[in-house]
Amino acid sequence: MPKISNRAVSMPASPIRKLVPYALAAKAKGTKVYHLNIGQPDIETPKTALDALKNIDLKVLEYALSEGNLDYRKQLEKYYHSIGFKDLTTDNFIVTNGGSEALNFALSVVCDNGDEVIIPEPYYANYNGFTNAIGVKVVAIPSSIDTSFALPKIEEFEKKITEKTKAILICNPGNPTGYLYTREELQKLAEIALKHDIVIISDEVYREYVYDGEKQISMLEFPELKENCIIIDSESKRYSMCGVRIGFLVIRSKTLHDAAMKFAQARLSPVLIGQILATAAHDNDAEYIQSVREEYTKRRNLLVELLNEVPGVKCPTPKGAFYCVAELPVEDADDFAQWLLEHFSDNGETVMVAPASGFYSVPELGKKQVRIAYVLKEEDLRRSVELIKIALEQYKK
Amino acid sequence: MPKISNRAVSMPASPIRKLVPYALAAKAKGTKVYHLNIGQPDIETPKTALDALKNIDLKVLEYALSEGNLDYRKQLEKYYHSIGFKDLTTDNFIVTNGGSEALNFALSVVCDNGDEVIIPEPYYANYNGFTNAIGVKVVAIPSSIDTSFALPKIEEFEKKITEKTKAILICNPGNPTGYLYTREELQKLAEIALKHDIVIISDEVYREYVYDGEKQISMLEFPELKENCIIIDSESKRYSMCGVRIGFLVIRSKTLHDAAMKFAQARLSPVLIGQILATAAHDNDAEYIQSVREEYTKRRNLLVELLNEVPGVKCPTPKGAFYCVAELPVEDADDFAQWLLEHFSDNGETVMVAPASGFYSVPELGKKQVRIAYVLKEEDLRRSVELIKIALEQYKK
Repeated sequence: MPKISNRAVSMPASPIRKLVPYALAAKAKGTKVYHLNIGQPDIETPKTALDALKNIDLKVLEYALSEGNLDYRKQLEKYYHSIGFKDLTTDNFIVTNGGSEALNFALSVVCDNGDEVIIPEPYYANYNGFTNAIGVKVVAIPSSIDTSFALPKIEEFEKKITEKTKAILICNPGNPTGYLYTREELQKLAEIALKHDIVIISDEVYREYVYDGEKQISMLEFPELKENCIIIDSESKRYSMCGVRIGFLVIRSKTLHDAAMKFAQARLSPVLIGQILATAAHDNDAEYIQSVREEYTKRRNLLVELLNEVPGVKCPTPKGAFYCVAELPVEDADDFAQWLLEHFSDNGETVMVAPASGFYSVPELGKKQVRIAYVLKEEDLRRSVELIKIALEQYKK
Repeated sequence: MPKISNRAVSMPASPIRKLVPYALAAKAKGTKVYHLNIGQPDIETPKTALDALKNIDLKVLEYALSEGNLDYRKQLEKYYHSIGFKDLTTDNFIVTNGGSEALNFALSVVCDNGDEVIIPEPYYANYNGFTNAIGVKVVAIPSSIDTSFALPKIEEFEKKITEKTKAILICNPGNPTGYLYTREELQKLAEIALKHDIVIISDEVYREYVYDGEKQISMLEFPELKENCIIIDSESKRYSMCGVRIGFLVIRSKTLHDAAMKFAQARLSPVLIGQILATAAHDNDAEYIQSVREEYTKRRNLLVELLNEVPGVKCPTPKGAFYCVAELPVEDADDFAQWLLEHFSDNGETVMVAPASGFYSVPELGKKQVRIAYVLKEEDLRRSVELIKIALEQYKK
C-alpha cells in the first residue's frame, strides 16, 4: 500500500468533522439538532441573485476568464469605489473559487515550503489547512478572551518575526471571535509589515457585518502598503451564497497581482454562474445589507445576553461577523460538544457547537471554549442557549 | 518591495497566455480570429442541464457537502455502474472545483515537497502548474510524433523511478495528443505501479470522446490497483460545461480517499449549482454523447485530412479527446503562432493555435509543433486550415 504524503498526514481535520457522525446518529434517533456550529446562515440569498439565476440564457456554459469575467470585475470596481477605494480598477481583482482559493493563492504567492505566517489566534480553523497544504508554518500569537480578543501587543509580533516570516494574516472582523481591529492596531501592523518588508494578508469577508454603528477599517486604507498587502474577499457571507463559490483577491501591487494570476491561470477558470449571480447581487444591495445587518445585530444581542446569563459562561460581545467565542464551565469543550450530540437531549432536541480548540494552533488554549455562529433565527437561538444551559447542569466533568 | 515566493517565480505561464495580447490586438484591428487554441468547445451544454438551471428553486444558495452532495454522488455511482464499475458507491467519489482541483488533491495526497511524478510528454500544460504550486517535480518521458505518441517503452519508466517517485500521471485519452492507451500499455503501467508501490493518477476527463469504434479503457479496470489508483474525472468536457467547475475524484482506496477528504474539507465546499446541473446532465445522456461524438469525429477527420494536405505539415490521427498535435514546417512554432496574430491576415481573418512547446517539460522538443483543438464547426475548421496554409507560404523562417 503506497504511503500518503506527510502533508496529507498532517492535514488538520476540521474542528467539527469528528462531531459529524454523532450529529448524524442523533438525527437518526429523531433528535432535532440546532446547528450553531457552522457559518452557513439561514438568511436568504438576495432576490436579485436568485432572479439572475432564472434568467441565465446561455447555450454553452463556458470557461470564464482566469481573472474573472469583465462584467463582474467592473461590478467589483464599482463596489470598492463605493466604499472609498477609488484608485482600484478591474485590473486589481482576481476572482477565485470562494475565499478559500483566494487564501491559497495569497499564501502561495508569498510563501515557499518551510516559510512562516504569523496569525493572531484563535483564528479561522481552515487557515491551518491552507498553510499545511503548501508546507507553510503558522506562527500564532495568542489573544485572550479576558481582553475580548484584542490584538496582542505589537511587540509580540516583532518577537516572532524571523527571516522565514513572509506574511501576517488577519481576519477583520474576525472568525471566530467577531473581533474588529482598531485603526491604531492596523496602523501598527502596517508599520511592522513595512519595516520587515513582509505582506499583510487581510481577510475581510465579513466587512459588511459590523454592529453598533461601527465601521470596518480595511487594510486598503493604508496606501503605504501598496506593495505589501493582499485583501481576501468573498460574496459567500455578504450575500448568504456560500454555495456559489465566488471569492476574490484585491491587490494593488502589480508584482503580487501578476504572481497570483499565474496560479489563477493554472486552474483555468473560476465559476461562471456564480459571477453572474454576484454581479446581480451587488446591484442596489443597500437595503439587503442593512436588513441582514439588523437581523444579525438582534441575534447577537440576544445570544450574548442569554449566554452570559448561564452560570459559568463567559462570552465577550463580538463587534462583527456572526460568531462568538464563549468560555464554558467545562474542562473539555470537545468532549462536551460530543456529549451534547451523543448523550443529551431535551424534549427531543439538542444543539451542535464548534469546539474552539480547532481555532488555536495550541488546542489546549481553547479547551474550555466553543464557537457559536448566530446564523439561526431568534427563537432557535433562544432555545439553543436554553439547551446549553440544561445540558451544562446535567454534564458532569 | 517584498519578494514573491520561488514557487510563484517558477510557476509556468500558460502556453497561450503570452499570445493573448496579440490576439486582442488583432481583434482590435478588426481581424477575425479562429480560436483553435483552447479546449472550449462550441458544442451546446445539454438541454437537461440548462433546464435544471432555470428550475432551481432554492432560497439560500448554501454550502454543499465537502465531498459533494449525495444526489450528485448517487448520479455518479449510477454512471460508473453503467460503464462497468459496479463495485463503486457514493463513498468512492469526492466532488471538486473542476478537474483542476481534483488534480491538486490527488498530487497533494501522494506527494510532498521535492517528490517526483512521472508523466509521458507531451502532456497537458497545466500539469506543470499544479505540480509547481506544491513543490512537486515532473519527470517527463518523451513520446514521439513519429510513433503517433505511443507510450514509451515501459523500461523507460523504470529507469526514471527513484525513491522520490510517488506517482505516474497519465491522461487517457490524452490532451494534447489525443492518444488512447492500449490495454497492454495500461497493464504494464499497473505492474510497474504495484512493483514500486506508487500511485497511478489517471486523468480520464475525455473518456466519452473516443472515435472509430474504439473504447477508452479506464485504469479502474485493474482491480489489483485498488490501493494505488486515483481517477480524475470532470463534467466540463463531457457536457461542454467547462464554466460550471465540476470535477471529481474516483478512489477505491479508503486510505487515499480519506486523505483527499482532508483537503476537500479545508476548502469547505465544491460548487452547489454545478452539481445540480451535472446531476441533470447525466440523465438520459446517451443521445447527447452520441451526437457530440459524431460531431467530433467529423471534425477530426476533416481537420487531420486537411492538415496533412498542407505541404510540410505532419499530423497523426488522434483516437480521442478533441485535440491533435501537428508538426509544422517552421523552426519555431511559438514565433509562428505569434506572427499569425501579429502580422498575418487573409481577408481580415487569422487563426490562433497553441504552440506545443508548453506541453513539454523540455520546450525544445515541441519547438516545431502546435496543438490544434477541433472545437469549432466544420466550415470554420476548413477556413482555419486554409489560413494556416496561406500563412505558411508567407511566413519566412
